[in-house]
Amino acid sequence: MTNDTACVRIDKGRLWDSLIALGEVGAYHDQDTDLQGVCRLALTDEDVAGRELVMGWMRNAGLTLRRDQIGNVYARREGEDNSLAPVLVGSHIDSVATAGRFDGCLGVLGGLEVVRTLNDNNIFTKRSVEVAIFTEEEGVRFGTDMLGSAVAAGRIQLADARAQVDRNGISVGAELDRHALVGDVKVPIHPPYAYLECHIEQGPILAEGRMQVGVVRGVQAITWLELTITGRAAHAGATPQRLRKNAGLAAAMINVHLNDMVESGDYGQMLATVGRQDNYPNLINIVPANVLITVDLRNHDGEAMQRSIDDLHAYLAEVEKVTGVKITSRTTAQTPPVDFPEQMRDLVEKQATHLGLTCDHITSGAGHDAGEIAALSPAGMIFVPGLYDGISHNPREYSTPEACADGINVLLQAVIELANTTD
Amino acid sequence: MTNDTACVRIDKGRLWDSLIALGEVGAYHDQDTDLQGVCRLALTDEDVAGRELVMGWMRNAGLTLRRDQIGNVYARREGEDNSLAPVLVGSHIDSVATAGRFDGCLGVLGGLEVVRTLNDNNIFTKRSVEVAIFTEEEGVRFGTDMLGSAVAAGRIQLADARAQVDRNGISVGAELDRHALVGDVKVPIHPPYAYLECHIEQGPILAEGRMQVGVVRGVQAITWLELTITGRAAHAGATPQRLRKNAGLAAAMINVHLNDMVESGDYGQMLATVGRQDNYPNLINIVPANVLITVDLRNHDGEAMQRSIDDLHAYLAEVEKVTGVKITSRTTAQTPPVDFPEQMRDLVEKQATHLGLTCDHITSGAGHDAGEIAALSPAGMIFVPGLYDGISHNPREYSTPEACADGINVLLQAVIELANTTD
Repeated sequence: MTNDTACVRIDKGRLWDSLIALGEVGAYHDQDTDLQGVCRLALTDEDVAGRELVMGWMRNAGLTLRRDQIGNVYARREGEDNSLAPVLVGSHIDSVATAGRFDGCLGVLGGLEVVRTLNDNNIFTKRSVEVAIFTEEEGVRFGTDMLGSAVAAGRIQLADARAQVDRNGISVGAELDRHALVGDVKVPIHPPYAYLECHIEQGPILAEGRMQVGVVRGVQAITWLELTITGRAAHAGATPQRLRKNAGLAAAMINVHLNDMVESGDYGQMLATVGRQDNYPNLINIVPANVLITVDLRNHDGEAMQRSIDDLHAYLAEVEKVTGVKITSRTTAQTPPVDFPEQMRDLVEKQATHLGLTCDHITSGAGHDAGEIAALSPAGMIFVPGLYDGISHNPREYSTPEACADGINVLLQAVIELANTTD
Repeated sequence: MTNDTACVRIDKGRLWDSLIALGEVGAYHDQDTDLQGVCRLALTDEDVAGRELVMGWMRNAGLTLRRDQIGNVYARREGEDNSLAPVLVGSHIDSVATAGRFDGCLGVLGGLEVVRTLNDNNIFTKRSVEVAIFTEEEGVRFGTDMLGSAVAAGRIQLADARAQVDRNGISVGAELDRHALVGDVKVPIHPPYAYLECHIEQGPILAEGRMQVGVVRGVQAITWLELTITGRAAHAGATPQRLRKNAGLAAAMINVHLNDMVESGDYGQMLATVGRQDNYPNLINIVPANVLITVDLRNHDGEAMQRSIDDLHAYLAEVEKVTGVKITSRTTAQTPPVDFPEQMRDLVEKQATHLGLTCDHITSGAGHDAGEIAALSPAGMIFVPGLYDGISHNPREYSTPEACADGINVLLQAVIELANTTD
């Protein structure tokens, strides 16, 4: 190791090619945008095909692959001193149903690109460097996001994670077994020395400020609720309003109220989304008997999050009273806000500045594996800007080759520094 | 024919047994109510099995069966003078997906019971009596209610009706052909002398007033709209509210606004229901990109109906402005209010009074085949009360054997009078 590692740069074209190639796995034509999208829901055949592609690249880069009990992959480049904890980088490659090519994939393929660059330049590090692929980060299929990293970090028990089921009743455990994804690394995993993850911002802030790199302060608190609203089916033409128990109206009132809560400003930087709604019997001339809705809440501030949940539950009681329905609420995910340690933020900012990149400090709106691994080790994140207001979970998601390379060059330099730090 | 026909009564047990037997066709266990329900969507195998059962009974009662071009069935008991237009009675046996045993079936099986009673008592009438089974009255499968009777009455063209498709793209015409339901009676049909239909009230008014029979003034206007709301999919955690085009929020605002319109009292006796909602992509952490909702509007007053539609469209423009979504509206059904002629209402009231039954004049909240046939001939309806606030389109739908018999005894006496009137 010499000082000239500061001048080493990743191969922008190779990184880009790997992003494009992985985006072909699970590709579909998206009618909404008329673009090619990606659908690689966790632990489906498509997700496993994506893993196989990336794991092949990892093996070709000389990495040693292991899996843990929830199917997370760790691809290791040996350091000079195996008694030292490794530097871990990574993210996920599972996707939502209407995804682009970048969410998660940039962190995994960027980690691979870092290793490839170290190889190409014969750079040896004191600590090993490991590239992780975490299982079911999106939470879309089985209902809990950051599932794999949460199990790795010990926040969620392995048995509870394996027991989670998708809409068809298929469990995480059954899918892990079907695809033979269970490895011998026990969870929770041994804490790495540090964890770093490069990710697309998935928001408009960096682009608006014309910033090249984001130094991530931390991750918002996330709460997911599933509300089951039980009303009564009735004839739409012959049942006076006063005799209805309209589960659909109750759902609509909750949706509008959540938006009012956000706009009130009373809950800080709160975000609220009702993404899913399933009406039963879902027919034009029948008052809905049962409606299931999901509520996705985000907040930078844990106290404001809790207050918003309490106030929402008070409102649900009011809706029950006004409409005559019954509402049950189930919390399907709940993560506190995470603040990344100062030394990791400083490291990212320093390397970005050395590279001549403009950067800004921002809080992540989305949940990330780094927020889970932060429970084990010092963790940090690097954001890169996206076009179109940073739209994500949509085939229009797009970060330029330059933006991706900037983020991964920061990752490279930060990894080299961390992997040579032994104090 | 002698005056003693005034003392003839239908066989209450036989009528009831036929209702129960038909309710076994398409029966299912309803999880919501833990009761046996009926699912006999129009032109499905279940609907056709129900028709076969009833048509067998009709043939056993000596009736001659014909079908028209949209599959409506006419079962004829010959009168003494075939040059006279027949008295038509009937209703439908197709059902919503979560139905009880009475909606429509009472009118068809009541008509059959009238004929059986005439047979048992050797009562001959001057005019023929025909019992009709109308196709797709519910409109749940193909999107337009009273489809069969509207084609019979000439309001809807046969080709347009045949071209209607269900959610799977299967057309009315294809189903009619598959089941060989097309008959040789041309549509629009020859006007009958008069049309009478006995039906459950599907509302709470008769039961609240402890009335045994309802003399139906007419049928509410009905408008069905299908609203397609186009927003933009976006990440629920990283997309600020101001950058969203939230199709789900727009749908909720419309639902709440419709309820406000009803409660304002500004539109007379307006009813509004958003029964169906389909979100896309329907995932917990994605702002809905596209939402389809249906709107079912009812009004006693045609002018108030039109005003409510105009005001709703003005509100849709407001929602587009506030949320950034685009909304397209398609009218899938629209029928004006129908007033049944005074002589038919008087006839029903007179026969009910002769039978010693308490009765009240009420306007139908639901659409009925009688509202369509009213365009051809003098039409009238007899309502019978239901338990549980007259709940309908639900397995809890229930009218007692006595209530059913009361209505059909009124029908019997009215049919005898009409079928012997030659002026």
